[in-house]
Formats: sequence, C-alpha cells, structure tokens
Amino acid sequence: MRKINIGLIGYGTVGSGVALFLQKRKSMIRKRYQIDFNIKSVCDLDIHQRDTKSIKTARLTTNFNDILNDTSIDVVVELIGGTHPAKEIVVAALKSGKNVVTANKALISNFGKELFTLARKHNRHLYFESAVGAGIPIIKTLTEGIVGNTHDRVYGIVNGTCNYILTVMKRHNYTFERALKDAQKRGYAESDPTLDINGMDSAHKLAILIYLAFGKFVSLKDIYTEGITEISAEDIENADQMGLTIKLLAIAKKEKNLIEARVHPTLIPKDHPLASIHDVLNAIYLNADPLGDILLSGEGAGQMAAASGVVSDLINYASKTFDTALYCNLYDENAQLKLKKIDAIETKFYIRFTVIDQPGVLSRISGILGKHHISINSVTQKAHNKKSAVPVIMLTDYTTEKNIGLALKAIHKLPVIKSKPVAIRMEKLA
Amino acid sequence: MRKINIGLIGYGTVGSGVALFLQKRKSMIRKRYQIDFNIKSVCDLDIHQRDTKSIKTARLTTNFNDILNDTSIDVVVELIGGTHPAKEIVVAALKSGKNVVTANKALISNFGKELFTLARKHNRHLYFESAVGAGIPIIKTLTEGIVGNTHDRVYGIVNGTCNYILTVMKRHNYTFERALKDAQKRGYAESDPTLDINGMDSAHKLAILIYLAFGKFVSLKDIYTEGITEISAEDIENADQMGLTIKLLAIAKKEKNLIEARVHPTLIPKDHPLASIHDVLNAIYLNADPLGDILLSGEGAGQMAAASGVVSDLINYASKTFDTALYCNLYDENAQLKLKKIDAIETKFYIRFTVIDQPGVLSRISGILGKHHISINSVTQKAHNKKSAVPVIMLTDYTTEKNIGLALKAIHKLPVIKSKPVAIRMEKLA
Repeated sequence: MRKINIGLIGYGTVGSGVALFLQKRKSMIRKRYQIDFNIKSVCDLDIHQRDTKSIKTARLTTNFNDILNDTSIDVVVELIGGTHPAKEIVVAALKSGKNVVTANKALISNFGKELFTLARKHNRHLYFESAVGAGIPIIKTLTEGIVGNTHDRVYGIVNGTCNYILTVMKRHNYTFERALKDAQKRGYAESDPTLDINGMDSAHKLAILIYLAFGKFVSLKDIYTEGITEISAEDIENADQMGLTIKLLAIAKKEKNLIEARVHPTLIPKDHPLASIHDVLNAIYLNADPLGDILLSGEGAGQMAAASGVVSDLINYASKTFDTALYCNLYDENAQLKLKKIDAIETKFYIRFTVIDQPGVLSRISGILGKHHISINSVTQKAHNKKSAVPVIMLTDYTTEKNIGLALKAIHKLPVIKSKPVAIRMEKLA
Repeated sequence: MRKINIGLIGYGTVGSGVALFLQKRKSMIRKRYQIDFNIKSVCDLDIHQRDTKSIKTARLTTNFNDILNDTSIDVVVELIGGTHPAKEIVVAALKSGKNVVTANKALISNFGKELFTLARKHNRHLYFESAVGAGIPIIKTLTEGIVGNTHDRVYGIVNGTCNYILTVMKRHNYTFERALKDAQKRGYAESDPTLDINGMDSAHKLAILIYLAFGKFVSLKDIYTEGITEISAEDIENADQMGLTIKLLAIAKKEKNLIEARVHPTLIPKDHPLASIHDVLNAIYLNADPLGDILLSGEGAGQMAAASGVVSDLINYASKTFDTALYCNLYDENAQLKLKKIDAIETKFYIRFTVIDQPGVLSRISGILGKHHISINSVTQKAHNKKSAVPVIMLTDYTTEKNIGLALKAIHKLPVIKSKPVAIRMEKLA
C-alpha cells in the first residue's frame, strides 16, 4: 500500500467533489491500485464557512504556504482557477519537489510551456486532465492513448454553457437572453457568464488542444474568438431548414507550417456526429494519422465530471513513476509553426440580410459580393411584404474573412438594407 | 535515447502496418520520446513471400523461437491472432522477461486472467489496446483515462464488418447477401466472414470490455450471441419508419452482483449518438460514475487503425516503468459477480409476423402474447391483401427472453402465420 498525502488548494465546487469522490471510492482505490490517498491539508480562503464533512481529518487553512511548506505532502491539487496566485502556487510546489494536479485551463493555456519545463527540470508530474472537457480523457488520449499519431484538424464543443444555450434556443425557439436565464436557473451558467458566452473559455481550451495536437504554444490573443451572444432563434431555424446546426466550435487546423485557430459559432451538417452533442455535453473530434478521425464525448462540466478528471490524474500519478516526456516533449521549437491571420482564413458563410422587398435589391447585393470575389451558392427569400423589411438568406462559397468583411460593410451601407447583416461561418468538418 | 528491440511475430496486414508506421514516424518518436524502436526480428510462416521493404535490417524467420530465445529483444509484438500458438508465444515471452504487445482479442478474452497474472508475476507489461476497437483508445480510457470511476452499462458497436453491412442495407435497401458481397469487394469483410457476421468477434471484444468495466472474467460461451444474418431490408425499413435504427450491439450491464452480457441486432433510437456511427466505424458508449456517460468512436478496423493501437502501446510501454496494476487489479474474486441467464433478461421487442389477412388474426396473436404476460405497445399492418400474406409489425413492452420465446413458438404454429416470426430486441441505451 502506498500512502499519498494530498494538499488540496481550493475547496469550492470541484474541490469538495474531489474530496467526496476519494472518500466514496477509498476502499476500491486501496484494493485495486494499492494506493491510500490521504487529504492531509485543505486550503481555501473561506474554508471555515464551508461544509467540511468529507475532510474531517484534514488540516484546514486559509494560507496556501501551509501546504507548500509541508514536506510530507506528495501532491498538490490546485483548484482555485485563474492565473494568479495559481501560477505561483504551482511553481513553488514543483520547485519543492511536489507533484501537481490542476484543472486550471487559464493556467495551462497561459503558462503551459514554462510549467512543463519546470516539471521536467524537477522530475515531477503536472497533470491537467480536467482542464479540457472535465473528465473526458482528451488529454490522456492525445498524449498516450493515440500517441504516435499526428494531427492536423481539431474541432471541439468545449463549453457546456454555450452548448446548453444553443440547444435550448433550438429546442424551444428561445431567444439568447431567455436561454441564458434558463441555463443560470439550472446552474449551467454562472451569474456572470461573460467568459463562457464570449468564447474565452473555449479559447483557453483550444490553446491547450493546439499544444497537444500540434506541439505549439499559441498566445490566447492570437486565437480569433467570437461568442454566441449575437445568435438569434431565427438563424437557428433557418440553419435547421438547410440541414445545418449552429454550434460554438473551437477549431484548429494545421497546413504545412501554418496554424489556424478560432472560436466562433459555426454551421455544421446535421448528420455530423458533433451535431448530436446536445445540452451541456462536450465533444472533441479530431483527425489522427494514421488512425483516422476519432470522437470523444461526455459531460464536460459539473462538479463530479471535473472531480473525475482530477481523481484519474491522482491515480495515474500515484501508480506510475515519473515520466513527463509524453506531454512535455511535444513542443518543437524548430518546427517554426506560424499562426494564420484570421483575415486569410477561408470558410463558407451563412448571411442573413434584412431588406426592403423591392426589385433590384438582390442584384445590388450580389453585385457587391461579386466585386469582392464571393460566389453565392444559394439565395432564399421566404416572405414577400411590400410594407416591411424581409429576411434574405444567402449561403456563399469559400471566401476569406477579409473579403466577407469588406463586402458586408459595403452592403450594410445600401439604403435598402435595414439592419446589420448577420454572418455565420460554415465548416465541412473534414 | 532508449533503444528498444522489437520482435514482431505475424507479418500480415497489421504487422506490416506496424513496420510502416514505425518507419514513417521514426524521427518524430526519437525526438519527442527519446525512443529508438528497432524491429530486430520478424517471424511469419510466409515471410519469404512477403514484401519486406520496410523491415530491411530485420532478421527474417519462420520460427518464433528465434525471437523468444533472443535475449536482446525487449518486447514481442504478437499479431498472429487466434488462441494457439499465440498463447504459448505470449507465455514464453513473459516468462523470459520480455514485454508483450498484442492485438489479439481471442487471446485476451480467453486467457486474459492467466496472462495478466503471469505478467504481474514477472513484472512485465502486456498491452492490448488494438484488441477492441483497433486504435480507438478504449482500453487506455477504461484503465487510466477515467480510472476511479465505476461502470454498470457498456454498449459497443465493435465490429466494422457488421456495421458496414447494416449501413449499406439501410442506405441502398440491399439484402443482407448483397451488402455482404459489397463489403467483401471493398475489403471490409473476409472471404470467410463467419466470425464477424455471427457475432463471435463482437463477443470476444465484449468479454474484454466486461473485464475492464466490471472486473469479471466471463466465459465466451456465457455471452448470448446472435449475428446479423437474419436481418432483412424490410425490418430495417420498418424500424426507420418508427424512428429506430438496427445496430449489432455488444451489451453488458451490471445490477448488484448480476451481469448480463449479450451480442445481438438491436433497435436503438435514431437520435442516439450510436445511431450515427456509420460504415466501418466503431463506437463504445458507457456510463461512468461519477463522470457520466461517455462515447468514443473512430475507425475500429483496418491496417493502420490497428497498427496505431499497437504503436501507441509500444510508446507507452517504452516510456513508462513497469506497473501492470492499472489493468491487472480490476479482477475482484470476492465480488461474486454472476452472469444473468439470457432467459431472464428483459427487453422490448420488435416482432414481424407474416399473416393471412383475415378477421380475428390479431386477436389470436395478441391472445397468445397476453397469455405469456407480454403487453403490446403498438401494432402496424401496412398492407391489406385478401389473396396473399401480409406483414404485421408489433412493438412489445418489456418482457423476458423466455416469455417471448414461448409466445413466438406458439404463434408460429397458428395456421394463419405464414413464416417464422422475426424478433429484434430494442434498447433504451440509458
């Protein structure tokens, strides 16, 4: 039996889930893996206001240095989130010879390179399975499960809040605002949902996936990021009639030494496996050479889903001797991978114009699109009404972000156009 | 740089794929993982008739003892399939201190317990990722990726041949025979497809999944196994109209200390993620407590998909020190898990009768069903024809295999029934 002393920093939803999980499965983990996990100390600023039933024997503290300075602690579980002081905690832990398990996507996406290097230098482990897709084992899969494969496309539904909002907007024909309220009521969105709905949370996760899939650390500011706040029930309905579904996708592609990285609402075919990922589920779809495309899906958020990833990390850490190479060595500084500018990226577009219903309107719109080298694949005008403005839906062929931006700006200025055109990117997912 | 000498036994499709893969990714594997894989010897009965371009420097032999007796070989890759002499080879390799990677589902499902015990005794690794779902990392996921979770339901589409046949039967309205010929033409079915289409291949894989999910070695003969040869285009079409799809599923459930294990054609809802697994794709859907349901899907067969699992195993073996506990310790001899008899298992059924179209027929059929405590959820008779027999489709409520068997036997004897009733099980997948 190997006794592992844990120092748990952060005792909110996930932290208390980890304690609960370890308590519930104590005998199974002892029996199967000969590991006896002991939560020795728990640090949380509000620890004295928390329910600490499942950590009865632990030392409770509000000062993380009590854990960092305790030489009997083998592994620090960092669950406070955010970059500071999480980074300082993890650095100090690794330097003092402790191993680290974290679920912190902001930390890994911002400081992964530095922290992985530090972990190797000190011959210690840094596990982060729950940083992407909670307990869905995407980190394990990319670093070990399909190791040896190379990748050039990753598509992820990695934010449960946004996926839930888009799902209920479609299911109940809700507005974005109503769907967000529903998500908050059910605990799927925080009272300040900004980082979820503006796409930043997905961008953090995409940065980690890009490192694991392509071996390149990208800066978050270089990931083009667009949230779901502008999506309307009308566009979801139009998409549905065209055999398409709108999902917030985190997308990364590699072609030679150019990487494109973007997070935005995306139209995908309804019969694609990602289209059937509903509610708060997450999914990652990626190609692997020579394995072929693979899909992993499951609960990507929530107390116990996140705790599951943390506990799996703990068991993996405790049952292996140290080898950080499988995720530390992916970075290739000679590869000279560069990020493609968003302006150069080509996709098809769904565009919705609100126009005055009069002869010549289509010709003026298509004239401007043509001038910007944009081909139109289809045009649909469902209603005719001489008195009020009506929607016109266009699907374009492949075009650049730059061209579509310039064309829509020019079209918006036409007197017959009654509101800002809506543009949503389409992906073939292949 | 760590040099690893490989002895490759079996140089057919998968074996030559492994050699090709290791050759193609040699510099990446050296650079990222500091491992230099060297295929030192290759054994195959027909080695002198094979294309050996990618193993130019290897010693070629037709006698596997040349590999087993070579003390410089670190790991034996067993790819000959079948139980004998594969078992003797693996036993001898482990006893002589070699590690083993195998893709052999027959071997692991029949002798897993003995071989895992032997591997632990000799402190050696036995990897078998490609034994289920080829390179889809389901073994890694169950043993490490979501370790700490417990499971009580597993549903797998684990045979690409059957899934391809059912897919094209639906897509093109083909008969089973025509779909099988199409699969053979494309290399998706062997010239003797028996083990695939009769469900045995799926049963082998289910036995391995049951061990990993429930910690119990079951005997293959205790897995109720039914293939897809009796499925007709008519039943696929009827199912489609009811919002259902027919898939060959490998199913395992655990309730208290009772396990049910079965492989059979199964009606599932069209909007379930497994329903969108088409062609030769494989998928495994399982619940995990506390993580929640997860799905893994991808290429479950083919040269490079299988080679991918083998190469991932090799890299995992070479970059870790020995710890076989994560998959060896799942077996719990005190758990007293028992297999449920197929007669006691309850599902809903789709039944198709071919009847003479005359008054009173339905009442006689439903009378017999009622006598066997079987409730009818719906009845559909699409055609009326006084001169020839017509199909009647029934969906039953939950009933036991025993009751449905007795009822159908009695109904078949009615003079108004013109052919053997067709019965297909339905699963809720939850």
